[in-house]
This record gives sequence, structure tokens and C-alpha cells, in this order.
Amino acid sequence: MANKPLPFSESVIKSWVEHAQTPFYVYDEAGLQETARAINKAFSWVGEVSSAPYVNFFAVKATPTPMIMNLLKAEGMGFDASSGAEIELAQRCDAQPGDIMFSSNNTDPSEYREAYEAGALINLDDYNQINVLQRALDGEFPQFISFRYNPGSKKSSGVNSIIGSPEDAKFGVPDTQLFEAYKKVRELGATRFGIHTMLASNEVSTKAHLMTAQLLFEKSLQLRDELGIEVELVNLGGGLGIPYHPEEQSADVDELGEHVKQLYQDILLSKNLKPRLVTEYGRFVTGPHGYLITKVRSIKETFHRFVGVDATMANLMRPGMYDAYHHISVIDSGGRKLKPQAVVGSLCENNDFFTGNITMERDLPLMQAGDIVVIHDAGAHGHAMGFNYNGKLRSAEYLAKGGGRLELIRRAETRKDLFATLDGV
Amino acid sequence: MANKPLPFSESVIKSWVEHAQTPFYVYDEAGLQETARAINKAFSWVGEVSSAPYVNFFAVKATPTPMIMNLLKAEGMGFDASSGAEIELAQRCDAQPGDIMFSSNNTDPSEYREAYEAGALINLDDYNQINVLQRALDGEFPQFISFRYNPGSKKSSGVNSIIGSPEDAKFGVPDTQLFEAYKKVRELGATRFGIHTMLASNEVSTKAHLMTAQLLFEKSLQLRDELGIEVELVNLGGGLGIPYHPEEQSADVDELGEHVKQLYQDILLSKNLKPRLVTEYGRFVTGPHGYLITKVRSIKETFHRFVGVDATMANLMRPGMYDAYHHISVIDSGGRKLKPQAVVGSLCENNDFFTGNITMERDLPLMQAGDIVVIHDAGAHGHAMGFNYNGKLRSAEYLAKGGGRLELIRRAETRKDLFATLDGV
Repeated sequence: MANKPLPFSESVIKSWVEHAQTPFYVYDEAGLQETARAINKAFSWVGEVSSAPYVNFFAVKATPTPMIMNLLKAEGMGFDASSGAEIELAQRCDAQPGDIMFSSNNTDPSEYREAYEAGALINLDDYNQINVLQRALDGEFPQFISFRYNPGSKKSSGVNSIIGSPEDAKFGVPDTQLFEAYKKVRELGATRFGIHTMLASNEVSTKAHLMTAQLLFEKSLQLRDELGIEVELVNLGGGLGIPYHPEEQSADVDELGEHVKQLYQDILLSKNLKPRLVTEYGRFVTGPHGYLITKVRSIKETFHRFVGVDATMANLMRPGMYDAYHHISVIDSGGRKLKPQAVVGSLCENNDFFTGNITMERDLPLMQAGDIVVIHDAGAHGHAMGFNYNGKLRSAEYLAKGGGRLELIRRAETRKDLFATLDGV
Repeated sequence: MANKPLPFSESVIKSWVEHAQTPFYVYDEAGLQETARAINKAFSWVGEVSSAPYVNFFAVKATPTPMIMNLLKAEGMGFDASSGAEIELAQRCDAQPGDIMFSSNNTDPSEYREAYEAGALINLDDYNQINVLQRALDGEFPQFISFRYNPGSKKSSGVNSIIGSPEDAKFGVPDTQLFEAYKKVRELGATRFGIHTMLASNEVSTKAHLMTAQLLFEKSLQLRDELGIEVELVNLGGGLGIPYHPEEQSADVDELGEHVKQLYQDILLSKNLKPRLVTEYGRFVTGPHGYLITKVRSIKETFHRFVGVDATMANLMRPGMYDAYHHISVIDSGGRKLKPQAVVGSLCENNDFFTGNITMERDLPLMQAGDIVVIHDAGAHGHAMGFNYNGKLRSAEYLAKGGGRLELIRRAETRKDLFATLDGV
């Protein structure tokens, strides 16, 4: 099996483990910057043809850690927040009005108030949310409103299998309600409009993303033709995939940018519509640049060879929850024999594994207690999805700067944190 | 579809929501006591025939909340801890030496030290853990040691489908190592021995549990015959199922106790072996007596009718993670028409539903914003598995005393808790 490169030399990684308590997360600063710049470059044409420059609103849910968010903000990104707490995180990063896209669903009215006060661009998920928003704002109404569109039929949308059929998703406004929704918010005072959809999740092929763009571009024209509404912002959403398997290819963001540009010219510019183009990439930005570093605690040889590491599903839930593949490297394992091994945590829970559920074992260098194990592509929806089941504590996060120097960006939980909601009860 | 009874009248439940912020958990004190007493009664014969009375070591991971644990301790239960944090919780409940069973796997050596100092009964999961334990205790060694046995083949064990084949589980010591393991701990100074296995999870039929008992009883005889080791404690484990579906029957603990007694007499007493019998029931104890109370926040009519409640997967992960069924009652819905509806949370995550993944919709009374919804059987592995994805906060827990009077037993998380590991970084 092909391998995945490590972000730093093995000796650097070994030096980390001498000072930091495993398990812990490390994010590669240079890698994050490189990806951020590649995305910006791919869509740099937007600023030349449209009313406003391209921006990626980073999906905070992927990596809700201010130091990472600050780094991405320095590269020009805004923030896509799904909740009030994520708006607050964005504000901790000094987000200004217009820097936050608030894309939520089944929303607590107080969060709309919070979004409005933060100057966030509000992206509504449902026709009925218009009323909720209006009531939450007590008579005021935002100038800018966007809607998340749900095109319904799978066939028309080029959707991939991960996110399922749009018809079965709770997200978005269908065609039958979309035009009424825009009319209604216009009546309520909105004068600036956006449109958004998200049909693919972790899709590395550009095809689904291009179909999304085409769909939104055509819908934008239709909104002008039928309602006289000039969409000023088209939000292509997220869903840009990363290669979890070493055999996979990354989504080619450069090619995507080129092809979206072509569609933009053919569909929109030809009709003299020039909306700003934005995205909400999260996983694509941070996923490949975050690593879960763990140590082998014990080897168990029964009906399989179980390699027990000190990380658990509490640190990384994707393999257990989605049977997701995460590549595993073993430090200093050059020349070791490969052997089928199951890498597991220490939860009393059958899903607590890192090597996959159905296949379970994976050919990996023969491991021993004390080995340092690197779990790749854990930068998005990794630490963020951690829990405290079995009384496990969520780990620290570090940013690896030049030369591999670690900077603590989130401390590890302690039992005091774990028991905090019991105190004084 | 059949219904499930509510623990208190609808007017009591409505009065809760006037004072407590939804979503929240409620545990029914009287129900917990009743189940605890039923279990104790079913196994009360143990104290008459064996060296020590029966005890259920409550699986703390199911409901790691001290006020619940205290209540169960008052009913005579001990605690089954899977981690150091759970040992500490048991100690907060004033657990004495012998009150804690420490059943972990791939264990951090410091947790063995913690277990030993708490006077916990240590239940080892692997042959190699003997060395880990010995090193952790710095030359000392516990008098009492138990092993978790893994019988291997599915056929011989009567295992159910939920926990999978024992051969593929990371848990337990197989036959090929079990006898060597007992010999080794005896050499290291152990003089008192236990045996444990857990082959079924949430199994309502008594058959699998009886096969577990038979397996352990026979293994105990074999240990005496072949090694001269007299097992003093047989731990039947947990896995006793509850009826999540209203059509299902609860495991009949009374019948189970009777049949285990018969096996105990036939296999053990007839050979003059009289080990103490214990269990590690968690879900069976607290599962049916915990309720997640949530309010309908918004209704969304697109390709389905989505009922958006203010609870999310952050409060109850079982439907999203396991596609588990949880029964749903709607307060004051008598006489309403049933309609297929999908009950969902507010996460940006396709798995964030309460009505099931594949079927998704369920026939439920037609709901409206403001309706109070009760999610049943959330008492075990409910709050305990909560996470903070999308910046969501875990809810409060209450104990409902006589007449439905609520006592706060865990406060809700705040954003301060959510951001605690960022402070000072």
C-alpha cells in the first residue's frame, strides 16, 4: 500500500512526544497556509470579474480552535458559523461585519440575534425560518439574506453518495418554496441577496462541485428573470474532498476554479450578472494538515493482533462513527515486516478502533508498546467531534511552526473539566 | 403502534418545562429503585448458597452521574468502572474497598494504581496486562484478580448479533491463554480469583445470558480441576437488554435469576463450588428510567415533514451513531392525527436525527412548534455519550422525586465550559 508523507521528519515527531503528553493533535502551519493560498489562487479571478473578491468562509465546525482560525483569517478567510458558539469563536478572532456567514438550521432565535449583532451574513435554511428570524430581531430585518437551496431530485443535482439524496436531507429550501421565500424577505426589507447549496460531502471529483455551481448560476438568472432579484453572492458551499486513502487524489482546486470560471462566464457574465463567489470549505482546508499523535500502550494477541494505543474514539470518532479510513504511519518502522493489525483505543465500546470496522485489520508495520503512531487527515471533524464517554478526556492541540516547533493552541482536558458540571449541584 | 407509558402525568411534565430549560434529562427515582430491587430480588438466592451476597456492579459508563450512582449504592449496588475517572466518581459516592470492579482494557498503568489504591477488584482483559499491572504497582500485587474470558467461536458462546463475534472483539482472554494467565497471577501473589465474560449487548432474551453463566460455571470447574484454583467470584457481566421498541419485551430478570440458580445448582453446587455471583448491569438499570425532554423549535415541510427539536445528537447520539430506535411521546397530543414525521436536531450533520436513519420518518402525532417531546429510554449511554460538535452544549440532568419534583443533579454546560480549554493558551 502506498504511504502518506509526514509533515515533519521522524526525529522531529519523536522530539514532540518527549515533551507533549500523548495523545495530542498537531496542525502543520505551513500546510494550512499552503492550502489556503491554493484555494485563494484558484478563485482569484472572481475579484476581477465580479463586484467583490472571492472569500472562503472557513467552516468553523471542522476545527473550532481560535489559533487555527486566526491563521486562516490572516490568509483572507472568513468564517462559516453553524451556531452561536461558533459566532462567538469567530468574534474572538476579531471577525468584522461581513466576515461571518451564519449557516444554521432549525435555529434558536437567540442565535439569529447573535448573528445579526455580529454583522454576519445570514443564510436561511427554510421558508419558515424567515418568521423565526423576523421575530428574533424584534422588528428589524437584515439587509442581506441568503437561502440554502435544496434541488430535490438526486439526478438533477449530481450529488454524491456520501450526503445522500437531497430529498431526504433536512437541509435547504426546495424549488416550490424558494421564489416565495425571496419575495417574502424582500417584502420584509432585504435588499441584498445570496444563494447557497451544498450537495456533496468530501467529494474529490470536481464534477459534483461544477454541477452545484451550474445549478446556482442558473437559479440566480431565474431569480432575476422572474423576480427581478439580483443575487449578489453565490455560495458554492463546502464538500470539497480530501484523499483519506493514499491511493486517492485530492480534489483539484485549481482545475475546479478554472472550470467554475468557465461556467461563470458562459452562464452569468454572458447575461451580465456578476455575483460575488464564495465557498465554505472546511475539511479541505484543515483536514490534511491535522495529525493525531498517539503511542502504543499495549499489544494484545488473541484471535487478531490488537494494537492498543492511548488515543480513543474520544479523540477521533470518524472511524467508529462512519467507518472512515484514516491512514496510519508508525514512526521508526522502516524495514519492519508488515502484518495485519487492528489499532484500537481503550474504550469499553466495540466501535473504538482506528483501522476500520468491517475490515478491522490493516497491513501495518509490526508494532510494539512504545511505538509512536501518527493518524493522518485528522485536522477536520477530529478533535471537534470528541466526547467524554467512559470518562475519557479530550486531548491538547498544538500548532507546528517552522522546524516543527510546537505551540500549544488548546490545552488537554483535566478531570476538573470533566466534573465541572457536577460541582455545586 | 403501541405506546410507552410516561413516568409522570402530562401536566407534571409540562410543569417541568416551565421551570427547566429544554433540552434536559430526567431520571425517574422510583423507577430506578424498582429496577434495582427487582434485580436484587432475582439474585437474592446467591447469598443463601454462596460465600457472599450477590451484587450488581453498576456500569458507571452508562450514567456517570454521582446522584444516580448514590441512589443505586443505597440499593446495594457497587460500581463497574472502566477508567480512572470512573473510579474517582465511585469514590465521590463513598465507594469502599470491594465496592468497585475495575474492568478496563488497553489500560493506562496509572489507572491500575488508582484502582489498587481504591481497593477495587481488578478484572484483567489480557494476558499481557498482568505485566502492566505488576509494573504499575511497583512490586506489590493484588490479592484478588479476575480475568475477562473470550470464548472465541460464536457458535459456542450463544452470542447475539449486536456485539458481534467474540473472535473479532478486542475484549477478553481466549482459552489458549486463560489458564496460563491464572497460573501467572498466582505466582505473582494472587490468592483470590474471579472470572468474567460479556458476550451479549442489549440482549432481552435470557438465552444468551444463560449460556454465559453456563460457560463461566464450567470454566470455573475446569480451573479447579486443572489448576487447583478455586474461583470465588463469577461475574456474568452486563448486556441485559431493555425494550427500546414498545413491542419488545424487557429481559425477564426474575426468570433469568431462576434459571441461573438452576445452572448454579446443577453445575457448581453439585461439585461443591460456591462462588459469589455478580453482574455489571448498566443499561438495564438506568436505560428505561431516563428521558430526554425537548421542545419543538420549528417545523419544516419540504420533501418530508421535519420536526426540528432543541435537542441534538450532542444530547443523544445513539440514533445517529447506531441507528438505534428511541420511542417518542408528544405531550398533549391525544386525538391528533398520526403523520410520518422526521424528528431532527440542529446540527449541520446528516446523522442528527431521532427517528432513525434508514426509515427516517415515523408515524407520530402531528407536531407543531412549542410541543413538548419526550424521548424514552435515554437513561443509559445517553447524556454520557454527548459531544460538543457544532459548538453545542450538553444539557442538565434532573432526578424526578415523588410527585415529579425535580432535583438538579448535573447543571447544563455553558460557553465558559465549552471554551475552558482555550483559556490562557
